[in-house]
Amino acid sequence: MPSPLDHDTLASIGEGAVLLRIFPRLPRAASGLLGPGDDAAVISAPDGRFVVTTDMMIHGPDFRLAWSTPHDLGWKAAASNLSDIAAMGAVPTALVVAIAAPADSPVSLLEGIADGLRDACAALAPGCGVVGGDLSVSPTLTIAVTAFGDLEGRAPVLRSGARLGDIVAVAGVLGEAAAALSVLFTEAVDPLGRPDARLAAALRARTAAQLAPTPPIAAGRVAALAGATAMLDLSDGLAIDSARLARASGVGIDFTLASLGADPARALGGGEDHALLATFPAGAQLPQPFRRIGICVAGEGLTVDGEPHDSAGWDPYRDWAGSAG
Amino acid sequence: MPSPLDHDTLASIGEGAVLLRIFPRLPRAASGLLGPGDDAAVISAPDGRFVVTTDMMIHGPDFRLAWSTPHDLGWKAAASNLSDIAAMGAVPTALVVAIAAPADSPVSLLEGIADGLRDACAALAPGCGVVGGDLSVSPTLTIAVTAFGDLEGRAPVLRSGARLGDIVAVAGVLGEAAAALSVLFTEAVDPLGRPDARLAAALRARTAAQLAPTPPIAAGRVAALAGATAMLDLSDGLAIDSARLARASGVGIDFTLASLGADPARALGGGEDHALLATFPAGAQLPQPFRRIGICVAGEGLTVDGEPHDSAGWDPYRDWAGSAG
Repeated sequence: MPSPLDHDTLASIGEGAVLLRIFPRLPRAASGLLGPGDDAAVISAPDGRFVVTTDMMIHGPDFRLAWSTPHDLGWKAAASNLSDIAAMGAVPTALVVAIAAPADSPVSLLEGIADGLRDACAALAPGCGVVGGDLSVSPTLTIAVTAFGDLEGRAPVLRSGARLGDIVAVAGVLGEAAAALSVLFTEAVDPLGRPDARLAAALRARTAAQLAPTPPIAAGRVAALAGATAMLDLSDGLAIDSARLARASGVGIDFTLASLGADPARALGGGEDHALLATFPAGAQLPQPFRRIGICVAGEGLTVDGEPHDSAGWDPYRDWAGSAG
Repeated sequence: MPSPLDHDTLASIGEGAVLLRIFPRLPRAASGLLGPGDDAAVISAPDGRFVVTTDMMIHGPDFRLAWSTPHDLGWKAAASNLSDIAAMGAVPTALVVAIAAPADSPVSLLEGIADGLRDACAALAPGCGVVGGDLSVSPTLTIAVTAFGDLEGRAPVLRSGARLGDIVAVAGVLGEAAAALSVLFTEAVDPLGRPDARLAAALRARTAAQLAPTPPIAAGRVAALAGATAMLDLSDGLAIDSARLARASGVGIDFTLASLGADPARALGGGEDHALLATFPAGAQLPQPFRRIGICVAGEGLTVDGEPHDSAGWDPYRDWAGSAG
């Protein structure tokens, strides 16, 4: 039997009461000098700099409530932002989280998001926590996370630092998020093609890479310490993102077909893996968990075993219509 | 005649092309060590700490497109966040801005928001700029700003530091944003009560305090240097927000009726002024532009000339329905 609390909504109990129920669930940040409760938070930046990135998740273009649990939403919002911090070679320190939800949303939606934020921080970036946020009413459920990181005195690892002859390596999975999305679109829908929660739940093992990805956050710092010359987060797919790194660095990239797994097209084209792509000097010993997938070559653009490859990947404007579900 | 560019939308030209048109319009941050273009930005934090706040503006609950120009939206999104930084006694250094807009939004909407962000930073917090952001598609136009500030080695000014006998002072206007909102709701609507752009444009002089507020951002640092014991940003109205400061500090506040202007009820109840409320030690010389409006007294809650006053003010859940306009 659902408890009476399950009937509480954002509108029925009000912002203040919702925040009181959410705050205790949020992870504390070791770097937080002053947490939620004042007009702003204060965060430690030991080396006199901080890394910052921001990213929104929108109901419709970015997720469907029939497929993602509230916990998934919090987890993914944290994971995708943590990955951008890791891609600079930094250690994530803190998040601020702004959530806008329909007034009739159950408070349990917000509690689930808070739990997902907490569990993602604990699993992927221990010590990182939520230091502040904002709660608003909107017809469209929206989660905006801003993440911070500490470079520990090092230079940031940019996209533009790869040099001719550098090893191209990756940490994390390739194509699994796209494969999971394909499972959702083909098997977790009713006969009219609408997202179906019951079907999605039964497919969980094959869809987790899309709904609650586990990017290798600690590998960002590891790569920086091992002398990575360039790095970025694979959010739009290996082909699109590696072409960005190549263009910024003024090199081409040749991938080794045999290193791209059982489905190289999916590995190259699939988005949202949040793996880390990094380059290392020729002859470098690759640090765990990086594996070699190619090399920086003269020229521009991408090749696979020397054959030209078109850079096309995940485009949220093209691939995922904004209808709700 | 509209130029062909006016027909461009977010969907028709794509995220990359939109960003190329927006980036040159955004203000640069003097504190930005690495700006937009990589996975994350790097910002200077000279004293080894940074102040951070985040706030969303949502179409419907927070603004109407018939009343606010795109420039207003960018301006207000910056101003309201800068005010939270100022309320800590900090100097605003940088913003990151995530915008979600319908796919059929004209690019000029985003350009106007960028111009408003730039002009607000230049006018209210020179040196502060936009170091990063995110652009998404959403059925609901949403602007999420995260702002950063530098405490310049000082302790943050909290809500909880006011002491018995402290002077209560304010910098900025009281009640003008609420008065302007009332003008919009009563005079800038058609006979059916729907927001009307033509009527709103003609009322601009009387509505600017709501649509494009000019909070006294520099006064935050001034108050901290002058020894302010507590401070906060007046976003929900003087009554609600001063009651928060009083509660956090364990004091009561007695306001002087004569200091609350021609319409004391409006000064106490109206929200969104983004004035700064601060307390200073008894006998302190108040720094410009602060003016005395009351004193910290024994007990709890608010009084006006010694008479009890109910703390009720702006409640976005109650006062402004979420229908679009």
